[in-house]
Amino acid sequence: MKIAILGGTGRIGEGLATRWATRHNIYIGSRDVEKAKNAACGYSCRLTDQGFECQIDGTSNKEAVEKADVAVLSVPFEAALDLIECLRPVLKNQILISLVVPMKKENGSFEYTPPEEGCAALRIQHLLPGVKVVSAYHNLSYRKLCKIDLDIDADVAICSDNEDAKQVVMDLTREIRNVRPLDGGPLKEARMIESLTPFLINMAKRNGLSDLGVKFV
Amino acid sequence: MKIAILGGTGRIGEGLATRWATRHNIYIGSRDVEKAKNAACGYSCRLTDQGFECQIDGTSNKEAVEKADVAVLSVPFEAALDLIECLRPVLKNQILISLVVPMKKENGSFEYTPPEEGCAALRIQHLLPGVKVVSAYHNLSYRKLCKIDLDIDADVAICSDNEDAKQVVMDLTREIRNVRPLDGGPLKEARMIESLTPFLINMAKRNGLSDLGVKFV
Repeated sequence: MKIAILGGTGRIGEGLATRWATRHNIYIGSRDVEKAKNAACGYSCRLTDQGFECQIDGTSNKEAVEKADVAVLSVPFEAALDLIECLRPVLKNQILISLVVPMKKENGSFEYTPPEEGCAALRIQHLLPGVKVVSAYHNLSYRKLCKIDLDIDADVAICSDNEDAKQVVMDLTREIRNVRPLDGGPLKEARMIESLTPFLINMAKRNGLSDLGVKFV
Repeated sequence: MKIAILGGTGRIGEGLATRWATRHNIYIGSRDVEKAKNAACGYSCRLTDQGFECQIDGTSNKEAVEKADVAVLSVPFEAALDLIECLRPVLKNQILISLVVPMKKENGSFEYTPPEEGCAALRIQHLLPGVKVVSAYHNLSYRKLCKIDLDIDADVAICSDNEDAKQVVMDLTREIRNVRPLDGGPLKEARMIESLTPFLINMAKRNGLSDLGVKFV
């Protein structure tokens, strides 16, 4: 499968890229093509050093999406809206995985700030009616993802209004060691998962923890 | 400690009562005193049969609260608002633990329906300004609680605007085997935990699971 990671030079982008690169063609997208190429090269080297074969290329966000079956949107909310506008001509019937969480920091803690549609995933689906938007991976630890031999031991709730797209993302999720995909329901339920992100960040800070994910037990 | 469990004849009430009854005096409260007495008797018998000493009495909700240091509010949202009005004269400076989740069922799935204050816990605090409202235990499985030797292996996020009350509830939580209390922050964060309840019920149904709780990993 061909997977574009938009915002692929960021931390969670690196984590997902390195987890999937041994089985899929990964296109790291960035506004800055040089940065994307450098990141792709860095991830490849790291995997090759560990004895894995992989295919990771760096390119523009636009070219990454044009080539992809699945695109991962891993950028902040406002940037995501701008990026979607730029990519509209090439975003057709791909699966678009939203990791986007609208939130702001106030008085030292984070607060979820959903758009009027109810959550970022619904806003994105509204802007791109033909695209199969799936919500997933907001609460995976990039540090754990980046240690590619590590059993992550977390659950991912996956939401979409397109059942086929949801199944594709559930299958991709099973490829990440010891991460269990769960059907999170229609896209409107993504609000729950998005809003968990600031809550987890705040709770980690309050309790002297870090990199909190979720398991449903 | 003296703990009133309002709605104590319900399932989660039974679970908490039996977990705490070997260390604390438990008052099972109900609108129907006969029902409360019968429930208290049943829980006591079950614990005694398993070799535990315990002190569980059944009484009216009002008398239970009058005697208690800590009262657990384990009834549906609308009933909770009515009950609070009745109990207002006896609710003074107790700690009131809200397990209340405002939700409705529509088209086969549950939906969170918070009041205008943002969540049930904030509404309750608003109605009872002198009471130390704490939000906890919405997502503990009553089946697991009722097996009192069972390691539950779940986390409980505890929210309150009163730090002393929060600590009391964190200590009570540590008494439940393998349940980890986490500081969930101020009471407004209870929205997150309340809204998890319908999400977990829906997700359990969709994925062929049951009794879903949460661990923050």
